[in-house]
Amino acid sequence: MPDNRAVVYRGAGHVEVEDVAYPAFEIQDGPGVNPDNVGRQLPHGVILKVVATNICGSDQHMVRGRTTAPEGLTLGHEITGEVIETGRDVEFIKTGDLVSVPFNIACGRCRNCKEGKTGVCLNVNPERAGSAYGYVDMGGWVGGQAQYVMVPYADWNLLKFPDKDQAMEKIRDLAMLADIFPTGFHGCVTAGVQPGSTVYIAGAGPVGLAAATSAFLLGAAVVIVADLQKDRLEQARSFGCETIDVSQGDPAEQIAQIVGEPEVDCAVDAVGFEARGHGGEAQTERPATVLNTVMTVTRAGGAVGIPGLYVTGDPGAADDAAKEGSLSIRLGLGWAKSLAFTTGQCPVMRYNRQLMMAILHDRTQIAKNVNATVIPLDQAPQGYTEFDKGAARKYILDPHGMLG
Amino acid sequence: MPDNRAVVYRGAGHVEVEDVAYPAFEIQDGPGVNPDNVGRQLPHGVILKVVATNICGSDQHMVRGRTTAPEGLTLGHEITGEVIETGRDVEFIKTGDLVSVPFNIACGRCRNCKEGKTGVCLNVNPERAGSAYGYVDMGGWVGGQAQYVMVPYADWNLLKFPDKDQAMEKIRDLAMLADIFPTGFHGCVTAGVQPGSTVYIAGAGPVGLAAATSAFLLGAAVVIVADLQKDRLEQARSFGCETIDVSQGDPAEQIAQIVGEPEVDCAVDAVGFEARGHGGEAQTERPATVLNTVMTVTRAGGAVGIPGLYVTGDPGAADDAAKEGSLSIRLGLGWAKSLAFTTGQCPVMRYNRQLMMAILHDRTQIAKNVNATVIPLDQAPQGYTEFDKGAARKYILDPHGMLG
Amino acid sequence: MPDNRAVVYRGAGHVEVEDVAYPAFEIQDGPGVNPDNVGRQLPHGVILKVVATNICGSDQHMVRGRTTAPEGLTLGHEITGEVIETGRDVEFIKTGDLVSVPFNIACGRCRNCKEGKTGVCLNVNPERAGSAYGYVDMGGWVGGQAQYVMVPYADWNLLKFPDKDQAMEKIRDLAMLADIFPTGFHGCVTAGVQPGSTVYIAGAGPVGLAAATSAFLLGAAVVIVADLQKDRLEQARSFGCETIDVSQGDPAEQIAQIVGEPEVDCAVDAVGFEARGHGGEAQTERPATVLNTVMTVTRAGGAVGIPGLYVTGDPGAADDAAKEGSLSIRLGLGWAKSLAFTTGQCPVMRYNRQLMMAILHDRTQIAKNVNATVIPLDQAPQGYTEFDKGAARKYILDPHGMLG
Amino acid sequence: MPDNRAVVYRGAGHVEVEDVAYPAFEIQDGPGVNPDNVGRQLPHGVILKVVATNICGSDQHMVRGRTTAPEGLTLGHEITGEVIETGRDVEFIKTGDLVSVPFNIACGRCRNCKEGKTGVCLNVNPERAGSAYGYVDMGGWVGGQAQYVMVPYADWNLLKFPDKDQAMEKIRDLAMLADIFPTGFHGCVTAGVQPGSTVYIAGAGPVGLAAATSAFLLGAAVVIVADLQKDRLEQARSFGCETIDVSQGDPAEQIAQIVGEPEVDCAVDAVGFEARGHGGEAQTERPATVLNTVMTVTRAGGAVGIPGLYVTGDPGAADDAAKEGSLSIRLGLGWAKSLAFTTGQCPVMRYNRQLMMAILHDRTQIAKNVNATVIPLDQAPQGYTEFDKGAARKYILDPHGMLG
Repeated sequence: MPDNRAVVYRGAGHVEVEDVAYPAFEIQDGPGVNPDNVGRQLPHGVILKVVATNICGSDQHMVRGRTTAPEGLTLGHEITGEVIETGRDVEFIKTGDLVSVPFNIACGRCRNCKEGKTGVCLNVNPERAGSAYGYVDMGGWVGGQAQYVMVPYADWNLLKFPDKDQAMEKIRDLAMLADIFPTGFHGCVTAGVQPGSTVYIAGAGPVGLAAATSAFLLGAAVVIVADLQKDRLEQARSFGCETIDVSQGDPAEQIAQIVGEPEVDCAVDAVGFEARGHGGEAQTERPATVLNTVMTVTRAGGAVGIPGLYVTGDPGAADDAAKEGSLSIRLGLGWAKSLAFTTGQCPVMRYNRQLMMAILHDRTQIAKNVNATVIPLDQAPQGYTEFDKGAARKYILDPHGMLG
Repeated sequence: MPDNRAVVYRGAGHVEVEDVAYPAFEIQDGPGVNPDNVGRQLPHGVILKVVATNICGSDQHMVRGRTTAPEGLTLGHEITGEVIETGRDVEFIKTGDLVSVPFNIACGRCRNCKEGKTGVCLNVNPERAGSAYGYVDMGGWVGGQAQYVMVPYADWNLLKFPDKDQAMEKIRDLAMLADIFPTGFHGCVTAGVQPGSTVYIAGAGPVGLAAATSAFLLGAAVVIVADLQKDRLEQARSFGCETIDVSQGDPAEQIAQIVGEPEVDCAVDAVGFEARGHGGEAQTERPATVLNTVMTVTRAGGAVGIPGLYVTGDPGAADDAAKEGSLSIRLGLGWAKSLAFTTGQCPVMRYNRQLMMAILHDRTQIAKNVNATVIPLDQAPQGYTEFDKGAARKYILDPHGMLG
Repeated sequence: MPDNRAVVYRGAGHVEVEDVAYPAFEIQDGPGVNPDNVGRQLPHGVILKVVATNICGSDQHMVRGRTTAPEGLTLGHEITGEVIETGRDVEFIKTGDLVSVPFNIACGRCRNCKEGKTGVCLNVNPERAGSAYGYVDMGGWVGGQAQYVMVPYADWNLLKFPDKDQAMEKIRDLAMLADIFPTGFHGCVTAGVQPGSTVYIAGAGPVGLAAATSAFLLGAAVVIVADLQKDRLEQARSFGCETIDVSQGDPAEQIAQIVGEPEVDCAVDAVGFEARGHGGEAQTERPATVLNTVMTVTRAGGAVGIPGLYVTGDPGAADDAAKEGSLSIRLGLGWAKSLAFTTGQCPVMRYNRQLMMAILHDRTQIAKNVNATVIPLDQAPQGYTEFDKGAARKYILDPHGMLG
Repeated sequence: MPDNRAVVYRGAGHVEVEDVAYPAFEIQDGPGVNPDNVGRQLPHGVILKVVATNICGSDQHMVRGRTTAPEGLTLGHEITGEVIETGRDVEFIKTGDLVSVPFNIACGRCRNCKEGKTGVCLNVNPERAGSAYGYVDMGGWVGGQAQYVMVPYADWNLLKFPDKDQAMEKIRDLAMLADIFPTGFHGCVTAGVQPGSTVYIAGAGPVGLAAATSAFLLGAAVVIVADLQKDRLEQARSFGCETIDVSQGDPAEQIAQIVGEPEVDCAVDAVGFEARGHGGEAQTERPATVLNTVMTVTRAGGAVGIPGLYVTGDPGAADDAAKEGSLSIRLGLGWAKSLAFTTGQCPVMRYNRQLMMAILHDRTQIAKNVNATVIPLDQAPQGYTEFDKGAARKYILDPHGMLG
């Protein structure tokens, strides 16, 4: 049994790379593990040698100390790897397969999984519907920013790449299938993006850029990305997006300059609850700003996709309402415009196969668009720090030095 | 040109039946008429002899003084009538046709109408997308709680009943096609109600009861209606609904007693912005209570239909945020459950033909279920008063004494 | 290990009740078992004590000798039972559970299953996509017209009834969830049946009557069922259907007498390839008659659901083209009317939970509508014979005398 | 009133450019005009100066003498033009607007139009649902391969380009919005093409190439186009399609060489009823060949779009069945694979606005991909001849020499 090094949360602002236990086909007790999950047998799981594992903006919510994540939590839910051991009940996935792991853990046997709603599986998290690896309040599945990780219900969860060599050539792109590419795509699909659409994407972080990439793949006519960070906006422009600097004022006016009217067909909130204000309030946290803006700029009868994370409790929030996850939303405005809203975790399995096909056949350049940047696992702490400062990069950790 | 009597808003708490102008094929200036609409020619319109015209809960928002509706506004947007004159450009609708009028006025020629989004027509209201008869901020189309009314774009807007005699026999049911039946149905459709669903409907007013009726028509297994008014809950029970008295505490617990778990598949908000609190707060206005409740009781992965009216501005609201239409919503809760939300006016045309068929073939008893009660036009003021007190009735005005 | 008696195909026109092997968690060689499936391990399976198992019209295709089904094949794919043993990898289904078995066998792990297309699972039949119990060319899964049967991938495939006692009270209805109720429902859903629709259903056999029942549950305004058998038409009328005797001539004319025009909104082909002609050709097999009729009577822009079985090869067909499954179809007529067609096995899992809810909450009476008739397992041969003669009954076999 | 020259059908194999009547706001008697349409008043129409008007493959069906088209019929249903006169009831379209005309004539006032099914409008063709300009059995609307043409229900039917100068720069592309681009797109949409799909398109004529262009716009991973004509296949390769020469044998094998398996996710029949055989039968008309092939090569659970024209009667067909529009189709094969089929005219209005946006924002190069070739109106006869011979071109007629 080899050693296993992993990225561990060590309190607000701190992550460290440490030795952790080698994965087993059983959930063992540990920080953040739900007592009802301890001892759970996982004969349907596989152990992966992690080939690529990305740092996600939602990891930052924990690392910034905005959640109740316990110290000692192994982080990481964006995992690509090679199967090195299969549980006795695994039938179709084989040792040697190179696979992408959807960040949402799903059993493939409950009502929601049967309906394709793998983001709200009923059997993996004793606290609520839905789970993920290495995340607070998600039942205690060990994270994958590590050299090795266990993936349960492997026949159901895993997406196998058809050709390993071909896949390794595009591994930076394929690494985005675990989360941000499907998440951005889900935001666009639920916002109704189609060929010819005009699209507003709030946020030029990796999910926003993945949403913009998705919008183009879906045939959008105009893709407008808004953010406060000049580097991220520059990154968005690098692949054909129009951009809006929200620190410069009202997005509606800037939209009008781009498309000739102050509205778009579709909008995606790729920011979530840690949003800052627009214009003069750009330094202040304004958790409802993005939602109110997307309602303002989406045309009547349009739709809004909300892949950006909103939380049920936010102990670090600026006010009491936000601490309970309550936001002051101009719902009346949305109602007057007959808008529809879709929230929640992206059910990755719904999209990852088709996005893999688009990558393998060169129809999209997700890694380039999000500025995928490979760093060794040991440099994860620096990666977290730089990403938190707003680096226009998506960091891929390379635990085994396989990414060249 | 015959006389024309109509129900006119005369300030907070007052409506009167007065003589008003006979309808013309042109928009004339008057209270609440948008200046950009004055003088608009309507050769595509017809004049109806109004056979039935209902009092709507949304009229009450104006009459209670919660809006900026001007005195002198002729009310009424739930209209059924007989065509007595056709504009020169009307081709398929004929004099003598008995028709239902969708409450949303639509041109049938703009992008939104072509997409079936008649609730947000771009050509009928200079202020914003969407319009309705006899309503504040809707461009100034004269209301139909009157003996005669003009309906524009008649070939597009009107639903003709195939057989007049047959239709007059079911006229109390067919009168509900103008608004509440499609509105309740839209709430259910957008909430994902299907055969076998468990459904929570907040509000046992006419729209709530219409939603419950729709849920049964859609094959729902269990329909649970919640309200504070005992008479309205009794009315809901009369046609097979389960009921919850929200003044008695937490709906989730009561749901669990009915269906064995504290959740339903689908939820409909048939209350809107004038909601009161639950449990001990039942006498206090709590505009976000219903929204937060439906998020609590809808299963993960479910959907919420919001036909209940939310407004962009509410001068009579209890606090400053609500005056701007901002509500403190636990969006984080909805997000954690991956809920989808659909808001806005029901596009009546999308549903009225099929619901007419269901009525004509005795598949649904909407009039009985909402306790349709016919009163003479002259008694409209009493009807408004009793309805405002919470009468478990849907009032149909009978301007020509045709409803027996 | 108890004895196991089962219904076995013994050549054209013959079935017998015989002793067969007790089920195992492995596929054993036998008549019709695909060599590539022999020896397949099934730790994910359960063994059921069969509570109810129905005779299906598609069994008749085999028993009439219209297929290449081998002698010795154990029949039966409409299975309801109690779990008496679980394979080592079954996690959520427990001994003692009362369950419905979708007739389509599915792995829950392939691309098609993940997309909800369980009728075309890629991992259960070496010959082609899709499988079923006890059926020719389906890979060799032993049929369930028996006392005991093995069901693979049990966590995925089985629908558990929430309360055993309650379920036993409605067991005749619930027995229809294995096939014909979802199959008829799928026909209606893919034909676009909605509240208010007018629906034409070709065939008043059990699937046709299940489709009619489904149409009502979906809110249809008018349900018209067509057949040649007077008893079956009488059965259809017993629950509110309009009927057409196709031996009396053109369905379009008879439709016009019922709904006032020679067309309906939606049509369902519940007959399939063994169709006979209409009017004077009622005694002659005319495999394309039903398809051509539904194209004639469906309104332009409508849709046609085709749950009735069409086969890739039909050795017993009247002409060479039909022997290859080729039919002479007036596709030009369908094209001129912009019709859409959906064919294939119903993916039962997509619908069985919701239909179970409708049954348990008394929203539908499927057993009464199809005239469900319980007979002992030993009388299966008589059941097959009477059903083949056109008895207006759906036979439920009762292998353990549990159905009272 | 200016002169008006137009392309007129003069018997099998002959078209001529002749002087025809200047358009009026009334249907006048003439070749192919339905008696019930004669004298119909059209105050809702506009007169267009035709800027571009294309020759369509479906025109060829008439010109080859395969239909009952009468001599003297003015041809042409792919029309782009400038409004030079508006009927008295036209409200939103203005003189000077540059517009695209959907080939399907629709009233915007019937049930089907309200449902967005403009290809089967109920009010424009006394014979059946649906109509088109300059086409046999379509009611008698004068064709638009002319200098001037009348378009009825102009507010409903016309798509206005937002900026005339910008539009004239892309007029070759925008001219494809009248028919083939939406038609190819509809084929792909109804075949379920999405990002990452593998797609088989039967036919490399203009509709096939438009379907291929649409598939890319929709994000397809692999687009395979099949035909017998080497030039057309070369044209398909020019923009990234894979190609199959069906004269060289079985498409399934060639597909396997391209994508590694003999199946695709989605298939489009862009050929229709004048199909020829594959392999050794490439010189023989085999009207069901394409349908049977697409059923063979589409994966189980997939869908097939059929924009290629199939007719209700085909007097010039090779056999009696085909003369009635009956084709020998392997429906059993399709059924075994649970395929869905969508047929019929594309409802252009459903797609033309979004495709216009994609063109105006440079997301697609439809004119280049179909090898759009501008010729003067007077050279229409040569254009017809060359196109009939299989030229890999899409001919745009330029009646006023405006296309440079």
